[in-house]
Amino acid sequence: MSEILAPELTWTGQRFESDVAVEVDDRGRIVGVGPRDMRPVRPLENRALLPGFVNAHSHAFQRALRGRGERFPSGEGSFWTWREAMYELVGSMDADRLFDHCRQAFGEMLRAGITSVGEFHYLHHEASGRGYALDQVVLEAAREVGIRLALLNTYYRTGGVQRPVTPAQKRFETVSPEAYWERMDALQGSLDPDSQSLGAVVHSIRAADLDEIRALHAEARARGLVFHMHVEEQQQEVLDCKQAYGKAPMALFLEQLEIDEGFTAVHCTFTDKEDLAAFVSRGGIVCLCPLTEANLADGVADLPRILAGRGRVSLGTDSNARISMLEEVRWLEYVQRLRRGKRGVVRDAQGRIGPNLLRCATEHGARSLGIEAGAISPGAWADFVTIDLESPQLEGFHSDTLLESLFLGAGRESLAEVCVGGRWRDLREPVS
Amino acid sequence: MSEILAPELTWTGQRFESDVAVEVDDRGRIVGVGPRDMRPVRPLENRALLPGFVNAHSHAFQRALRGRGERFPSGEGSFWTWREAMYELVGSMDADRLFDHCRQAFGEMLRAGITSVGEFHYLHHEASGRGYALDQVVLEAAREVGIRLALLNTYYRTGGVQRPVTPAQKRFETVSPEAYWERMDALQGSLDPDSQSLGAVVHSIRAADLDEIRALHAEARARGLVFHMHVEEQQQEVLDCKQAYGKAPMALFLEQLEIDEGFTAVHCTFTDKEDLAAFVSRGGIVCLCPLTEANLADGVADLPRILAGRGRVSLGTDSNARISMLEEVRWLEYVQRLRRGKRGVVRDAQGRIGPNLLRCATEHGARSLGIEAGAISPGAWADFVTIDLESPQLEGFHSDTLLESLFLGAGRESLAEVCVGGRWRDLREPVS
Repeated sequence: MSEILAPELTWTGQRFESDVAVEVDDRGRIVGVGPRDMRPVRPLENRALLPGFVNAHSHAFQRALRGRGERFPSGEGSFWTWREAMYELVGSMDADRLFDHCRQAFGEMLRAGITSVGEFHYLHHEASGRGYALDQVVLEAAREVGIRLALLNTYYRTGGVQRPVTPAQKRFETVSPEAYWERMDALQGSLDPDSQSLGAVVHSIRAADLDEIRALHAEARARGLVFHMHVEEQQQEVLDCKQAYGKAPMALFLEQLEIDEGFTAVHCTFTDKEDLAAFVSRGGIVCLCPLTEANLADGVADLPRILAGRGRVSLGTDSNARISMLEEVRWLEYVQRLRRGKRGVVRDAQGRIGPNLLRCATEHGARSLGIEAGAISPGAWADFVTIDLESPQLEGFHSDTLLESLFLGAGRESLAEVCVGGRWRDLREPVS
Repeated sequence: MSEILAPELTWTGQRFESDVAVEVDDRGRIVGVGPRDMRPVRPLENRALLPGFVNAHSHAFQRALRGRGERFPSGEGSFWTWREAMYELVGSMDADRLFDHCRQAFGEMLRAGITSVGEFHYLHHEASGRGYALDQVVLEAAREVGIRLALLNTYYRTGGVQRPVTPAQKRFETVSPEAYWERMDALQGSLDPDSQSLGAVVHSIRAADLDEIRALHAEARARGLVFHMHVEEQQQEVLDCKQAYGKAPMALFLEQLEIDEGFTAVHCTFTDKEDLAAFVSRGGIVCLCPLTEANLADGVADLPRILAGRGRVSLGTDSNARISMLEEVRWLEYVQRLRRGKRGVVRDAQGRIGPNLLRCATEHGARSLGIEAGAISPGAWADFVTIDLESPQLEGFHSDTLLESLFLGAGRESLAEVCVGGRWRDLREPVS
């Protein structure tokens, strides 16, 4: 039986429209978007319907660090001192704890209106062994919470550019591209086909040699899988790569890999402006994580350069120190305002910022993860988040500025329900 | 009848402690903080008790601009293009609309854990006349909502440095220091003594001549009133002042005024580092507004310089485009991390950031407004906000990192109740 949704307002790609209904089939897909006179409806009174938010970059287990790694007894800290705290957490992790942290993180994401997550997963092994038991834990936690998951399964063979893994990194280790693809084949059989998919990942230039990166990327393309990588989040990584290969990571990838829209580069904080322009001109997607990049004191990517090249930006909650897609989109624009002393950095041709911010939080994220989501259109999964039009935070809204009111002025309490593949959850009630 | 509160955890100034009870008398004041064996209790199970947040700088009516002034059809905007949108709003304001916007803004503040607000009020007149009807509207709205209010009543005689007010600014206009103090005397009689007080304000160096500023500041000190002013939010203001007086505004005030802790300078975005050091060394308080300063693309103040001089920072929601004290404190630290590439900028001698962030959001705000609040100690008003220790966002918290978990990782849904002068409100239910 299909279901007809009839929200007060529906986002149709460029604007909110009233009198638009959405038909969802019993497999959890959108099959029609059209006039509101379709058959019996699920009333969504005082609701505006958006595509569910897509979180393109998460390390769920780092949720356990919330509020920690935030003490600085020997003076100011950095990304690298934070990484020590993270490695310490890794040392204490077992399957049960990992399950709990994934359940916490994924549950919070749902409550924040996030219906899909790309879990950039590198914590493969239990302390005791070489097995990949922890991969299954992530898949199970996502199924239990009911969030759509792209398992971005991570290759990690070296502990720095052309260096062996350290003891702290042993639990991330993968041994060869061949073994990696065997593992990917095995994982494929463990997925819930209605809510889970795979993506290929090399952690960063620190985690594999160039020939491995080339082989892994080529195979990912041959298999039609998206490919993700941390790129130039920190200066040190750029310096190490230049020393080993004579070029910065992005320049190297542009020279050595067939970059297309299947490649998502995460952060690009220190990417050279010409490289960044070349990367997006080939279709590459840049994933930014404003809250984490601020928490870790990474810096601010050159977003105007990306937008000038009509590049796509997806968004990630990354370290999950805070999980709020509304705050991510708000600060995507705001850190640019602070850096440039100008307002409206992500504006479109009509001078609006809401639609572009929404695309980053939905459509571009879905493209980044290779999933059919991020838009309210036939064929896509029925993944939605609703706005409560009676929220005090939105009092006085107009439909043509509702997105800006939500993104710049509101918090989670203005979101009412989420829907993943046709399954609705009321955000006013506890989620799993 | 006094009431004994017995929260699971109580913030006692340096840490959370269990087994600490708080006694509140029937006038709404804290009269004792001590061991938990005091008489019958109001149980606050699964709650941590904090002083209510103090919002030291608000323009409530600007709440009506939420989501507006965010369209940029002719390219990037600035503070000054935003001000045009704000002046347009002012043009359309009457007493009823102002009341609604104040009620919305103050209600949202309460729901965000803010128990006191300093309303920097300059929209005095209705379109029709020279009366001060709109001052009363602000007082009434605050009483209806039940938030503590310091009416920072604003002097505004010139429309730019040594220029007449423009037609758009007519509704802000005050005519002379003498008339201003007459008006202040009249306002004094309109206050609710248990929840309302006055502060003196000159809008900025743009709004009065130096001799007026000197006279107004001296009289405010003589009356024991706090004195607030926008200082160096924009470069243009610094340039105009240098042209007229040969000095930047802060340098001029340091030379011409008796700066002490009664003086709160709002923003100080472009303040010279020596001036900033001198200002805080005399006790001056700097009020920062991280969300508004980002929204308006103002820039980032030199917080490390303020902290190095043991200066006090209070916080304000300013334009109220977004009302969240948790997000203000988080981004107070984060914009500094992005600017400096270092973490832990607001750390104290023990390397902690939570206690200093809390002081900015409470104690320093109360000092800025001249009110007896911002701490859980005898003599202070019984103004509190409670943390829901069962919030999923705080799952896994430890009491020694709870503040950091809340400030860096949580939203309003982790706050459970507020209390203003002994009057409790459940944040899970609609406020007013």
